[in-house]
Amino acid sequence: MQKGILVVVSGFSGAGKGTVMNRLVESHDDYALSISATSRLPRPNEKEGVNYFFKTREEFESMISRDELIEYAEYVGNYYGTPKSFVEERLNEGKNVLLEIEIQGAMKVKSTFPEAILIFIMPPSASELKRRLVGRSTESTEEIDRRMNRAVQESQGIEYYDFILVNDDVDRCAARLHGIVEAVSCTSRRQAGFIERIRQELKEMAGGAE
Amino acid sequence: MQKGILVVVSGFSGAGKGTVMNRLVESHDDYALSISATSRLPRPNEKEGVNYFFKTREEFESMISRDELIEYAEYVGNYYGTPKSFVEERLNEGKNVLLEIEIQGAMKVKSTFPEAILIFIMPPSASELKRRLVGRSTESTEEIDRRMNRAVQESQGIEYYDFILVNDDVDRCAARLHGIVEAVSCTSRRQAGFIERIRQELKEMAGGAE
Repeated sequence: MQKGILVVVSGFSGAGKGTVMNRLVESHDDYALSISATSRLPRPNEKEGVNYFFKTREEFESMISRDELIEYAEYVGNYYGTPKSFVEERLNEGKNVLLEIEIQGAMKVKSTFPEAILIFIMPPSASELKRRLVGRSTESTEEIDRRMNRAVQESQGIEYYDFILVNDDVDRCAARLHGIVEAVSCTSRRQAGFIERIRQELKEMAGGAE
Repeated sequence: MQKGILVVVSGFSGAGKGTVMNRLVESHDDYALSISATSRLPRPNEKEGVNYFFKTREEFESMISRDELIEYAEYVGNYYGTPKSFVEERLNEGKNVLLEIEIQGAMKVKSTFPEAILIFIMPPSASELKRRLVGRSTESTEEIDRRMNRAVQESQGIEYYDFILVNDDVDRCAARLHGIVEAVSCTSRRQAGFIERIRQELKEMAGGAE
């Protein structure tokens, strides 16, 4: 069985990353979502090992010191990070692992897993991004402005990503994401085992024909 | 309109490259086959500008001296080569150009067009390759052995290719080839124009919101 591909997904708030990733996991057996560890307390509806792996601060810090996290960050007094073992187990099972993370985290993942592919999901236009943020009636005008300004900052790092995906339609975007993963699985580096096997077979058969 | 992608296709004799490429051109408007120039005489059924661009030896040599060929080679006393202008015109029209060529030619194309993608089409196994060669009843046993030995040689260069495609089924292989071209069109390098445009829009909108 071929090892899975680690797919790092970033994008502006409002680009629809989560919906696209969920669509892909629902429609294809060979994808899994990465699950983060956090030191914050679970909310009433959150389940251990589904939404997060919940840890005490001490447990989280000992994971850091044992190098058990691909990346981590502290945010409003709580730790958040990606447990290495969970990702590696899924990859070894042949699952492609989807990991949603912001740009600094994405760069750290790439340095630990150079074979990871980095995908940035974009809205079709800036005005569409604003429309989607305004459409979420839960957000205040200040929050919308804050997110638009954050998008300006994040847009500086897009070139570090391998692929850019426009989310004009969730199904189409999920299909394109799957297409990229399939294409990457055809790269000669990932097909090295198959190349070596057929090379050996050819030698034996051509030798036998002499 | 986005510029097309130059797709260089190689593979062992009997791997089914030609059939896969024709299937793609028949089923998608945005693909074109590259047409070679040659100094050999046309065969009765061959048409100028369809099968080949037929040139005299002198004309061909003046194309060489004017650097009008992406690559060329001499084979059994005749020149064969790929006219640069034909490929560039199709790419500028937004067509993806399929160019079938052996490995040395593929390397030359890559040095002239670094953005070209190199695809090697493989049979599912060495025994399947032999089966297909034997199935072509036109070929003598010596010719089959010669082609198997040539495949052994060619198999040494497969790592130079960007992608390996297994041709187990023509439609499936053509679809995968198209998927690779679509994935390549999503690379951040090819999306540089879109990135710049949305970055500019975001700045204007965030500025306007302040």
